[in-house]
Amino acid sequence: MAQKPSIPKGTRDFSPVEMAKRNYIFNTIKEVYALYGFQQIETPAMENLSTLMGKYGEEGDKLLFKILNSGDFLHGMTPEEVANTSTLKLAAKFCEKGLRYDLTVPFARYVVQHREELALPFKRYQIQPVWRADRPQKGRYREFYQCDADVVGSDSLLNEVELMQIVDTVFTKFGVRVCIKVNNRKILTGIAEMIGQADKIVDITVAIDKLDKIGLDAVNAELADNGIPAEAIEKLQPIIQLSGTNTEKLVTMKEVLKDSEIGLKGIEETAFILSKLEGLKNEVELDLTLARGLNYYTGAIFEVKALDVQIGSITGGGRYDNLTGIFGMPGLSGVGISFGADRIFDVLNQLDLYPKEAVNGTKILFVNFGEAEANFCLPVLAQLRSEGISAEIYPDTAKMKKQMSYANAKQIPFVALVGESEMAEGKINLKDMTTGEQQLVTPSELIKILK
Amino acid sequence: MAQKPSIPKGTRDFSPVEMAKRNYIFNTIKEVYALYGFQQIETPAMENLSTLMGKYGEEGDKLLFKILNSGDFLHGMTPEEVANTSTLKLAAKFCEKGLRYDLTVPFARYVVQHREELALPFKRYQIQPVWRADRPQKGRYREFYQCDADVVGSDSLLNEVELMQIVDTVFTKFGVRVCIKVNNRKILTGIAEMIGQADKIVDITVAIDKLDKIGLDAVNAELADNGIPAEAIEKLQPIIQLSGTNTEKLVTMKEVLKDSEIGLKGIEETAFILSKLEGLKNEVELDLTLARGLNYYTGAIFEVKALDVQIGSITGGGRYDNLTGIFGMPGLSGVGISFGADRIFDVLNQLDLYPKEAVNGTKILFVNFGEAEANFCLPVLAQLRSEGISAEIYPDTAKMKKQMSYANAKQIPFVALVGESEMAEGKINLKDMTTGEQQLVTPSELIKILK
Repeated sequence: MAQKPSIPKGTRDFSPVEMAKRNYIFNTIKEVYALYGFQQIETPAMENLSTLMGKYGEEGDKLLFKILNSGDFLHGMTPEEVANTSTLKLAAKFCEKGLRYDLTVPFARYVVQHREELALPFKRYQIQPVWRADRPQKGRYREFYQCDADVVGSDSLLNEVELMQIVDTVFTKFGVRVCIKVNNRKILTGIAEMIGQADKIVDITVAIDKLDKIGLDAVNAELADNGIPAEAIEKLQPIIQLSGTNTEKLVTMKEVLKDSEIGLKGIEETAFILSKLEGLKNEVELDLTLARGLNYYTGAIFEVKALDVQIGSITGGGRYDNLTGIFGMPGLSGVGISFGADRIFDVLNQLDLYPKEAVNGTKILFVNFGEAEANFCLPVLAQLRSEGISAEIYPDTAKMKKQMSYANAKQIPFVALVGESEMAEGKINLKDMTTGEQQLVTPSELIKILK
Repeated sequence: MAQKPSIPKGTRDFSPVEMAKRNYIFNTIKEVYALYGFQQIETPAMENLSTLMGKYGEEGDKLLFKILNSGDFLHGMTPEEVANTSTLKLAAKFCEKGLRYDLTVPFARYVVQHREELALPFKRYQIQPVWRADRPQKGRYREFYQCDADVVGSDSLLNEVELMQIVDTVFTKFGVRVCIKVNNRKILTGIAEMIGQADKIVDITVAIDKLDKIGLDAVNAELADNGIPAEAIEKLQPIIQLSGTNTEKLVTMKEVLKDSEIGLKGIEETAFILSKLEGLKNEVELDLTLARGLNYYTGAIFEVKALDVQIGSITGGGRYDNLTGIFGMPGLSGVGISFGADRIFDVLNQLDLYPKEAVNGTKILFVNFGEAEANFCLPVLAQLRSEGISAEIYPDTAKMKKQMSYANAKQIPFVALVGESEMAEGKINLKDMTTGEQQLVTPSELIKILK
C-alpha cells in the first residue's frame, strides 16, 4: 500500500469520540451564553490582510497564515523586483487575504461594518477555529477553536458580573471545581503610581504576574533587572504578598492607594463586582498579581484555574476600552471572556467528567441475519427512531462475530438478535452488552426499555 | 470616520438571526444523522496540497486556495528561477498547504490515515466550511458549509435505503415537501450499451440530464452535436420521455435493457431500494434522466427537489466505488448524501418555516431603573436562568425608550418593569410586547408564565 496520507503539522483530525466530547463542551457553553441573552455570530475564515496586519504586534504579523492570490499572483513583476523585495513585502504583494488569528479582531471589524444593524449593547458569542503559524508543540496547535463572549457598547459593571456568573455556571455544569481570579488594571496602575513608577507599569505587572510560576525572589530579581529602584521594589512587597479575604485585601488596598485616583476607582469597581458574586458556587479571589494581556485590558481582568488538575488558565477575559478604534469607530467599550476549549477538554478527560449520554451514540444494533430477518427489523428500527432512539442495523449479512465486534467498537450498549424463532413470535431477543443478559421482548417493550 | 472595513468578496458574516436559523438547520440534520448511528468527525481546514491536487480535475486545482509557506518562502530561489517558472509551479513551490475544497477528499484521506482505528462500515457525518476560488456570483460563495453523511466499507443497499429515509425525515421535520429522485449509473450504462453508444455514456447523460432545464429538442440537438447517430437518438426517445409509476418504468426498462447485464443489475438495485421506501412521507421518483456527477457515481444516484419553491437541487448523493483508491487503499465502496445548507436556508426563508422557538433568543428583558431596582431583579434573573429561561437585564440605567427599543430590536417577547412600588410589593410588572398587556406577578408566577 502507498504511503499513508497525512495532515499539516500542528493540525488535528477529530474522531467521533473526540467530537462527541467537544460537542458536549461547546453545547454546554452555548446553552449558558444563551441563558444570558448572548447571540451567536460567525465571521469568514479569511479576512483581508489589511484587517489583520498590525493588530497582533510584529510577532503576530509573522504568525498569520497568508493566502496566495488566485491566478497570476506575480502580476507583471520583473525578476529584479522579485529578487530585490524582502520576503515580507513579497508576501504582502502575493497575498491579500489571511486566515483569522483570533476572534476579537474579526469581531471588532464586524461591529464597525454592521454598526447600523446592531442594537447596542451587543452581546455576542462566537465559537470558531483560528489559525497561527506558531511552532507546534505539546498542547499548542496551528488550528484551534476559540470560544468567546463579549458585550460591547456598555460601561456597566453588571456585564462583568454576568460574565463571572456564566463562568461559574459553566464549570458547575461540567462538575469542575475552579477558582475565579479577578483583578483590575486600574489597581495595577494605582500601584505603579504609588511606588513612583507609573511609566514602568508593564514591566512591573509582567514580572509580578509570574509570581505563581517563578516565586518571589525571581520576581524581585526581574523587577531589578528592569530598572525598578530597590526602594520601589521594597514598597511593592506587602502588595505582592497580600493575603486574607477579598474584603480584607480591599480594605488594605484602599488605604495603600488612597492618593491614587485611578487606583481607588479600581478598588471601587472590584468591590462592586465582588459584592454581586456572593451566590456563586465557585470561589472568587482578588489576586493583585493577575495581569493577563495588560496592554489590552483597561478595567476588570479575570482568569479561571481548575482546582483539581495541574494546568494553566482554562478561561480568561477582561474589560477593554476602544475595541473598535482600530477600525475608525472610537469610544466603544467592551468586556469579554474566552473559554479555553482544548484545556477544558483535557481537564474533563483527566477527571473523567463526560456524561455517558453525551458521549454515547447508537443505543441499539440489530444484527443482520439475512433479508427476511432484516425485513422484520426495518419497521422496528423506524419505530425506535421516531421515538428518538438511535438505532442501527448492520447493513451486510456478515458473520455474527464481525457484527458483534462492530457493536463493541462503537460501544453500543444493546444488541437485538432476531432469527426465525423470534420472527415467528413477533419478538426481539435483546442483549444487554454490559451484563450479557438476554430477554425476549415485544417491540413496544423494547421502546420502553431503551427510553 | 474612516472607511468601513470589509471582508473578502464571496465570503459572508452570519448575523445572530442568520446563525439561529442555520443552527436550526444543522441541528435538525445532526439529530437525524445520529438516529441512524452516524457519528461526527472534523478534519483540519488546511490539508497538504499533495492531498488535494489532482482530485478535482485541472479546473479544480486552479480553484484551490493555497497558503503561503511561513518564513522565507522563496527558499534561496534565484531571480532567474522565479522569472522562468510558471505561476502554477511557483505556487507549488511557495505553498505546501491548501484550504479544503470539499468534505469528500478529506474524508477519504481520514479513512486511509486512521484505518486501523475504524470499525467498518464507518458511518460518519461532517459539517464544515469549504473554500473555492470561484468567481463569486448570486448564490455562489467562496466559503460555504457542506453537510455530508457517508457510509464506507459496505456494499449493502440498505445503506442507500437509510440515506433516503434520512432525507425524508429531515425534510418532513423542516415541513418542506420534496420529491426524491433516484436513478442508477448502471441503468445509464445499460441504456448507452442498448443504443450502441457505450463509449459515449458521459456525453449522453450530460445531455439528457438537462431535459428539465432546456427541453427535449435542445437535448436532442446536443446529442447530435456530440456525434450520436440519428438512429441512436431515435432509440433514446421513449426512454427519455418514459412516464408512469416507478413500477411501470421498471417493467418497461427491464424489457428495454434485457440484453444488458449491467443494465439489469441497475434495475434490480433500484427495484430493491424503491421497495423498501414505501412508508416515506415524500414522493420518490425514478428519473432516468438524473445523472449528477456521473464520473463519480457507480451505483445509485439521488437528488432532492423542493416542490413549493423554484430552486435547483437541495440535496444530492449516490454510491461510488473506490473512494480511497486515490490514497492507495483500494476496494472500499461508499455511499453518501450532502445537504445543500445555503439553498435549504433560502427555501425555509421563502416558505417561512423557521419555528419561532428555534430563532428566538432572550425571553424577557428586565428594564434597569437604577441600582436598587437592579439589586431586586438580579436574584429573579438567577432564578429564571436556573429554570432554563433566557433572561437579560439592560446593563445600564439608560432612558426607558432606549431600553424598550433594545427589546424590540432583539425581538424579546416580554419586558419586566420593576420600580419602587413593585419592589415594595415584591412583584414584577410583566409586559407582553406582542399584545401590550401588563400584569403584576410574583417571581414564581413569572416563571410559570414564561415556561
